[in-house]
Amino acid sequence: MHSDRVRLPSLLDKLMSAEQAAALIEDGMTVGMSGFTRAGEAKAVPRALAERARKHPLQISLMTGASLGNDLDKQLTEAGVLARRMPFQVDSTLRKAINDGSVMFIDQHLSETVEQLRNHQLKLPDIAVIEAVAITEDGHIVPTTSVGNSASFAIFAKRVIVEINLAHNPNLEGLHDIYIPTYRPTRTPIPLTRVDDRIGSGAIPIPPEKIVAIVVSNQADSPSTVLPPDAETQAIADHLIDFFKGEVAAGRMSDSLGPLQAGIGSIANAVMCGLIESPFENLSMYSEVLQDSTFDLIDAGKLRFASGSSITLSARRNAEVFGNLEKYKDKLVLRPQEISNHPEVVRRLGIIGINTALEFDLYGNVNSTHVGGTKMMNGIGGSGDFARNAHLAIFVTKSIAKGGAISSVVPMVSHVDHTEHDVDILVTEQGLADLRGLAPRERARAVIDHCVHPSYRAALNDYFERACAKGGHTPHLLREAMQWHIDLEETGSMIGGVLGVAASA
Amino acid sequence: MHSDRVRLPSLLDKLMSAEQAAALIEDGMTVGMSGFTRAGEAKAVPRALAERARKHPLQISLMTGASLGNDLDKQLTEAGVLARRMPFQVDSTLRKAINDGSVMFIDQHLSETVEQLRNHQLKLPDIAVIEAVAITEDGHIVPTTSVGNSASFAIFAKRVIVEINLAHNPNLEGLHDIYIPTYRPTRTPIPLTRVDDRIGSGAIPIPPEKIVAIVVSNQADSPSTVLPPDAETQAIADHLIDFFKGEVAAGRMSDSLGPLQAGIGSIANAVMCGLIESPFENLSMYSEVLQDSTFDLIDAGKLRFASGSSITLSARRNAEVFGNLEKYKDKLVLRPQEISNHPEVVRRLGIIGINTALEFDLYGNVNSTHVGGTKMMNGIGGSGDFARNAHLAIFVTKSIAKGGAISSVVPMVSHVDHTEHDVDILVTEQGLADLRGLAPRERARAVIDHCVHPSYRAALNDYFERACAKGGHTPHLLREAMQWHIDLEETGSMIGGVLGVAASA
Repeated sequence: MHSDRVRLPSLLDKLMSAEQAAALIEDGMTVGMSGFTRAGEAKAVPRALAERARKHPLQISLMTGASLGNDLDKQLTEAGVLARRMPFQVDSTLRKAINDGSVMFIDQHLSETVEQLRNHQLKLPDIAVIEAVAITEDGHIVPTTSVGNSASFAIFAKRVIVEINLAHNPNLEGLHDIYIPTYRPTRTPIPLTRVDDRIGSGAIPIPPEKIVAIVVSNQADSPSTVLPPDAETQAIADHLIDFFKGEVAAGRMSDSLGPLQAGIGSIANAVMCGLIESPFENLSMYSEVLQDSTFDLIDAGKLRFASGSSITLSARRNAEVFGNLEKYKDKLVLRPQEISNHPEVVRRLGIIGINTALEFDLYGNVNSTHVGGTKMMNGIGGSGDFARNAHLAIFVTKSIAKGGAISSVVPMVSHVDHTEHDVDILVTEQGLADLRGLAPRERARAVIDHCVHPSYRAALNDYFERACAKGGHTPHLLREAMQWHIDLEETGSMIGGVLGVAASA
Repeated sequence: MHSDRVRLPSLLDKLMSAEQAAALIEDGMTVGMSGFTRAGEAKAVPRALAERARKHPLQISLMTGASLGNDLDKQLTEAGVLARRMPFQVDSTLRKAINDGSVMFIDQHLSETVEQLRNHQLKLPDIAVIEAVAITEDGHIVPTTSVGNSASFAIFAKRVIVEINLAHNPNLEGLHDIYIPTYRPTRTPIPLTRVDDRIGSGAIPIPPEKIVAIVVSNQADSPSTVLPPDAETQAIADHLIDFFKGEVAAGRMSDSLGPLQAGIGSIANAVMCGLIESPFENLSMYSEVLQDSTFDLIDAGKLRFASGSSITLSARRNAEVFGNLEKYKDKLVLRPQEISNHPEVVRRLGIIGINTALEFDLYGNVNSTHVGGTKMMNGIGGSGDFARNAHLAIFVTKSIAKGGAISSVVPMVSHVDHTEHDVDILVTEQGLADLRGLAPRERARAVIDHCVHPSYRAALNDYFERACAKGGHTPHLLREAMQWHIDLEETGSMIGGVLGVAASA
């Protein structure tokens, strides 16, 4: 039974139920689970763990690659299992628990979690739970639709639970490239110089005796929740493509651009879709998550190769891609997130990083995470790994939200995830601000002229001009800098702020 | 004449006066000059340029490695020469011009300037002015006490002016290691795996016909302005050494620690001096600037090797070190700042980065640059290059300034240079907060308990508790978050803020 999926015969006696495997997880443990952007998470064991905790309370510290699908973070939160959670999440129930202070959430650059584990700066996982399509003849683990932090979790944990998920196409085997940096102080360069280089192994190499349980599951990844492009996201894509055309014309890029990275979500996905109708050819991706747009670009003959750490697709695209995996397999590789996001590789390759901002300010500081400066949305994810080291650090957002009650372009962001030093290009549906080589006052002029929504333009300009009159390299009026956010918090709209600022002029 | 310093005979006819060389710099040009932390700047030509501009106004965009000595930024500012300046400065006259908006200052991560030049995202220098101890038989330029951005400036500029400064010990030749990353998309890994690796050439390789002028000067570098350790800096050093002892005891570091980086300035210098009396042995540095403490540690037999981009010493130490250079030469290397600060190398080597904060907040966000959120002090320098990628990102500051009128630990920083994601350890004379693996509310508790001055502790704790009651992953009270800064701006003291916050509780 399942000898094609568990190819090391000595491991077959580790087959057990999810409940039996979940019983190996004890109160107070640190647990590392597979899963990255709702792809390839262990499914049966965490669900069984949540069920058990409803009757017999226990708490763990949970590390993953990034977000989990199948409402697992919701179930674990509702069952009170999560004492600590890192490094990323997207679940509304968990988000609420994080924001009320009942779950301690550690929001990290996604390339850094396993580095901190390797150096024992974070507690190593006691146990790892990894979804797989197979265990090889050597007892090595073949991941499914994500690699994330799975390899390092399995390497660092004393014990490993493997979930063999029959819902995944077994032909995923061969897609992965598992490379783990060597230990300091004798670490050598990561030998990756092209997006399609393969530098590691096809499976996670661990001693098979660490595998203490094998659970067979049969459940699909959750489909992505990406929205189709709309007029605003199309306008953002158009501005960016015009900018790229200018860069090519100026000789700063070839017409295959550079390796593209796109953050998760509808706007970045729409921007990538915009490249289908562009003049650029022979594109490549070196990104975290491969979304629908990646495969749209491959199908359009535009994208020659995509490197990622996970594949997260809509329900429609899921069947097409994984049902025809042989069509795509030689154009894809999945890597550990430490490598997909590694500063060394991002800088070497010259990535064009396209990520979504929650809001940005006059001077190009970007808030990616905190609504109103206090409430965690999802986490910084890999945006900082890419933005800091990218050839071009691009942030995109619609200029307004909630029907205009919120301006995404503000005098001062309420929380900073990416500083002015790390942000090259800002794009809204209004236009594109090219901040490269500009001083703060020049950056502000570009943001006001090109990015802010017309309904907020006069107020933002008024703030800036009065701040300039007061002086400073980065002019601000400290008494007013947070006013738009305060008005939003207190009245549900920044419009009050706008009127207030204008009235005080 | 000077044939020992200009060893390619065909270049001897390029010898001319500083005035003649300065005349090659035209209005509107972009100029790249040597100089990093007041070490190795071209001296005669910029001074002649300032003198000329007083009679015949002209403006340039000036790029350097980092700060210039010998009041050159002051002279150039007063002569109205500077339209634009990047990527760092420390001059009070220039600072004033930056803050009143008359000089456009672009504050950059020091590893990134030449990367942006290489990709033509910044305008290439029309002309470079590089201080040297010699020009080799091949016409290559041997720098003096800094490398900084000199190599790339000379490579990118169409024309190069060389200042041969007779005041420097010619034995500096052999100290430098000039490695320039290859162009994308065929860039290869930087082959540096140990702090003492030599991976490049001893001189800046340019075609000799690009050298259009050679000026002979005889003027010392400005001495550093570093202050001797005091009780507070000693306390900071003691806290940090205790922490390092704990890391060694826990097996997270060996007793040679990791390669050390120390930011410029008195506090970081004092912390390094503190290591003289520590139990750690066989230390190494991989830093930007080598200050007095580097040589104190070498003399004490504690430091086996130091890699930097410049050497900046006090007057006393200057004579001892450069007068006995043979004693130190096999323990030193000077590299381009792109390499001394490169994310790839910093992450690979596992640097312990120690940098000075202007202020930090409850959650570990650090302001390194802007007084009151608006006024530029010096610039971010290399602190971000190191902090983001370090094994340990440590920020140090005294807990109060101006006799207690200012708390360096605030509810919310007025400007963010290093986000909470990038800050591991905070140290004041009060104690050390170890933020690794902590969620924001836990970080705040550590900062309040260990870092803030007692006179501000109750007020900070009060802010935090009321913010927590309101909720959020990163609790803040937006109406009060900037109040301490506002009080400082309006009353000259944050004490008003403290009383105000307490009264509103």
